[in-house]
Amino acid sequence: MYRIGVDLGGTNIAAGLVDDDGKIKASKSIKFVTRNNHEDLAADIAGLCKDLMQIGGVGSAQIHSVGLGSPGTIDPPNGTIIKAHNLNIVNMPASHLIGRVLNLPVYVENDANCAALGEAAFGAARGAKNSITITLGTGIGCGIIIDSKIYSGTFFGAGEAHFVIRADGKMCTCGLRGCWEEYGSARGLVSEATQRQYRLDESQILKLVGDIKNITPKIIFEAADLGDNLAIFAIENYIDNLCLGLGALINILQPEIIVIGGGMSGRGQTLVNHINCRLPDVVYARDVRTKIVLAALGNDAGIIGAAMLDK
Amino acid sequence: MYRIGVDLGGTNIAAGLVDDDGKIKASKSIKFVTRNNHEDLAADIAGLCKDLMQIGGVGSAQIHSVGLGSPGTIDPPNGTIIKAHNLNIVNMPASHLIGRVLNLPVYVENDANCAALGEAAFGAARGAKNSITITLGTGIGCGIIIDSKIYSGTFFGAGEAHFVIRADGKMCTCGLRGCWEEYGSARGLVSEATQRQYRLDESQILKLVGDIKNITPKIIFEAADLGDNLAIFAIENYIDNLCLGLGALINILQPEIIVIGGGMSGRGQTLVNHINCRLPDVVYARDVRTKIVLAALGNDAGIIGAAMLDK
Repeated sequence: MYRIGVDLGGTNIAAGLVDDDGKIKASKSIKFVTRNNHEDLAADIAGLCKDLMQIGGVGSAQIHSVGLGSPGTIDPPNGTIIKAHNLNIVNMPASHLIGRVLNLPVYVENDANCAALGEAAFGAARGAKNSITITLGTGIGCGIIIDSKIYSGTFFGAGEAHFVIRADGKMCTCGLRGCWEEYGSARGLVSEATQRQYRLDESQILKLVGDIKNITPKIIFEAADLGDNLAIFAIENYIDNLCLGLGALINILQPEIIVIGGGMSGRGQTLVNHINCRLPDVVYARDVRTKIVLAALGNDAGIIGAAMLDK
Repeated sequence: MYRIGVDLGGTNIAAGLVDDDGKIKASKSIKFVTRNNHEDLAADIAGLCKDLMQIGGVGSAQIHSVGLGSPGTIDPPNGTIIKAHNLNIVNMPASHLIGRVLNLPVYVENDANCAALGEAAFGAARGAKNSITITLGTGIGCGIIIDSKIYSGTFFGAGEAHFVIRADGKMCTCGLRGCWEEYGSARGLVSEATQRQYRLDESQILKLVGDIKNITPKIIFEAADLGDNLAIFAIENYIDNLCLGLGALINILQPEIIVIGGGMSGRGQTLVNHINCRLPDVVYARDVRTKIVLAALGNDAGIIGAAMLDK
C-alpha cells in the first residue's frame, strides 16, 4: 500500500507518493493559486493527487489515505483548515471536500506538525517517543511529538514560537514584544547584523551584497567564514537567542531529541555545535539531556509526515 | 478499595487514606527525620502507612496501592528517588524498600506531578485532558498532564520552571539568569518590593513588618489593600513576570486549564483576575483559550495525586 502526502504552501502545492518505509516513490508539485471558493482549491489538490497516482502507476485501491499539511490553525478531528492567513483560507472543510473527489480518507494537520511527525517516523527523531522539530526559516515552525503522536494542544494551537524570551524586547511581527520567533528566526540573525550600521559599513557583509536589503543568513555565514567580526558577533548573539527558546522547550518538555530544520539548518553541524556550546547556560542544573540533531528529511518531512497522519 | 497517598516533604511526611472518589478518609503526618540509610526512611514511611490503616480501620487487603510524592528527580518506572537534594536522598529504591515492608505495590513520582494529577483527577482540572498545575511558593512547582496522564519528560525532568523569561536578568538560585522561577515565585514578588529601598522607606509595607527581612507576599498584598503605591506597583510587576511564564506554557502547550496553587494562590480570585488581565499581552494572537483557575485541593492535592499514581 501507498499513502499520499501533500504539503500546501503559499508558492507551491507539493505531493508525494509514500511507501510503508517512508520513501517517496513519486512526486509532483503545482503552483498554488488563490481560488474564490473551497471547492476549486480542493479540486486543485485532488487533481494533483490523481496526477501523482498516474505518475506512480498506482490506482486508488492501492492508496491507504491522503494527508494534507497546511500552514495556519487546523482542526484535525474535523478535517478543517480553520485559518491559513497566508493562503487566504478560512474554515475550509478540506478532508470532506478533497475526500469526496478522491473517494479516499483525507487527513489534515498543521504543516509544522507534519514535519515533526515525518522526522519522528522516518527521519532524525526516529525511535524517540518524545521529540520536537523546529523549522528555522523566515519564522520558526515548531511541531511537538509526545508518545509518538502529534501533540497539537487543546485548541490546536500548541507549539507556538511566540513565547517571550526577552521581556520588553523587540516588537515581533505578531504584535507582541520579545518573542522567540523574532530573535531565533532568520530575521533575528539578519537583524543582529543590520542593527549596527556603524559596524556594518566596515563589514565584509555589506561588501558581499552591496545593499543592506539583500543581507541574508547565508551571506552572514559566508562573511563569518571570511573572519568578519560583525558576522561572527551577530551569529554569537543569534545563537544565544536561539538557545533561550530551545532551553525553554527543554526545561518545560525535556524531549529526547530536538530536530533542527529549515533554511538556517543549512549551516549544518556548525550550527549544532554552536547550540550545544550555549545550551547549558539556559537549561536547569546545566543538565542538557536532550539531543540536538539536524533534520534528515529536508523539505520532504512535511510530505512524509502528512502521509502518515492516520497512524 | 482504598489507596494511600504519601507526600514526602522536608518538614513533614503526610499520608492520606483516599477512597475511589478522591476523598481523604483518614490522615496522619509525622516529622521528617534525616536517616543514615534508605531502609530507615522506608521504615518511617511504611510505619506511617500502617498507622494510617489502623486509624482508618482498614487492613492491607483493602488497600489497592501506595503512592509516594517526593521532591526532586524521580524515576517512576523504576520506583527510585534519583535525587532529592533538600531531603538528602540519592538513588533510593523507594518502591522496592517500602513495598517489601507493606507487601503492597508502591509507586513514586515527583511531588509537583502528584499535585497536578490530583487536581486533574479530582480537583480544579477535572475533566480536562491536558492541564498544568503550577504551585507558586518559595519556588515554582510545575506538573504537566497530557492525555490525562503525568508527562514527566524523557528523563523525568519536564516541567522545570527555570526557563528564561528575561534574558540577562536576575541571577536565580539555580545559577542561571532570568529564570521564570526567580521572577514568578514568592521571592520574585518580595524582590519587586524590596529592591527599591528609597520607596520602601515611605511605604506601608515596612511599617507593617518593621524589618525588611520580614516582608512576605502576604504583607505586600495587605499593604496593597491599604492603597500603598509601592505594594501595588510591586504586584503589577510581579504579575507581568508571572504571566511571561504562564504565556510560555500556553504558547508551547496550550493546555485546557492551568491550575494555580501554592501559598501565592491565597490571594484568590484577585490573583486570577490580575493574570487574566495581562495574559493576552504574552500569548500569540492575544488569543488566550486556556482557563486559569485556582487549585481546589490545597495541600491535599499531592496526597490525592500520589494515591492515584497507578492509574
